[in-house]
Amino acid sequence: MLRLLVLICWTPLLFAQTEEIRAMLAKSQAMWNRGDLEAFVTDYEDAPETTFIGREVVRGGTKAILDRYRRRYPNRDAMGTLTFSEIETRPLAPGLILATGKYDLKRTPAGGGDASGRFTLVIRKTPAGWKIIHDHSS
Amino acid sequence: MLRLLVLICWTPLLFAQTEEIRAMLAKSQAMWNRGDLEAFVTDYEDAPETTFIGREVVRGGTKAILDRYRRRYPNRDAMGTLTFSEIETRPLAPGLILATGKYDLKRTPAGGGDASGRFTLVIRKTPAGWKIIHDHSS
Repeated sequence: MLRLLVLICWTPLLFAQTEEIRAMLAKSQAMWNRGDLEAFVTDYEDAPETTFIGREVVRGGTKAILDRYRRRYPNRDAMGTLTFSEIETRPLAPGLILATGKYDLKRTPAGGGDASGRFTLVIRKTPAGWKIIHDHSS
Repeated sequence: MLRLLVLICWTPLLFAQTEEIRAMLAKSQAMWNRGDLEAFVTDYEDAPETTFIGREVVRGGTKAILDRYRRRYPNRDAMGTLTFSEIETRPLAPGLILATGKYDLKRTPAGGGDASGRFTLVIRKTPAGWKIIHDHSS
C-alpha cells in the first residue's frame, strides 16, 4: 500500500523531470545549431568540480568547458549540425538525474566530416535550474 | 557553525567511502589480471536497469555485461594486464558515488596491442556492497 502510494506520488514527478531534461537537451541542440557555444555551455554547472571527459579531461566551470569546445570546434563548419537521439533518463536521487544518449554531427568534408558518439551526463537540479555536473562523451 | 559541524561529521564518512571505492577498484583490477571475468562482473549491479556504454550500449544484469566482456576480450591475450590510475571519486548523494579514472591494458601484439581509455562509473551502495549501476568507458 505504501509502495503504491509512493509510486503514485513519484510517477508524475519523474515524468516531469524527464520532460525537463528532454527540453533542456532540445534547447542545447538548438543553441549548438545556431553556433552559440557561449549559450550552449551554460547548461554546465559553473563550478570547479564540474568535469568533462572527452579525448582529454576538462575540469572547472563553464569558461574551461567553453575553451575546450572552442579548441575542438573552432568554426561553424567544424560544429556542423547536431542531433541528439536515444535519450534516456534515470533518476539517481532527488534532484539528480543520469541522462544518456547519442549525438550525431552532420558536417561537410571541410568541417571534418560526419561524426557520432554517445554521452553520459550527470545532471543536478540547482537554484538556476538543471545543470550538468559531469559529462563523458565518446 | 552548523556548516562546520556537518563538515566534521561528513569528512570521515566521505574519506571512508573513497577508500571503499578504491579498494573495490583495486580488487576489480586483480580479478581481471587473474583472468576471472565472472568475478570481475560481480561489481556491477545485477539489475535490468544497469547500463554499460562502450562501443555499444549494453543493458541488463551481470550476465549481459559478462557476455559483452567475453565478446570483446575472448581470451587471456586480449585481456592483457589491466591498471587503473587517476581515480577520483565524488559523492553525489548518500550512498551514491561518481568515480572516474583511466585504464591501461598492456597486451601482446597477438592480444591486440596496448590500449587505454577513461571511465565514468556511477556506484551505489546496496545491501550487497557498492555496485556499479552505470559504466561509460571510452
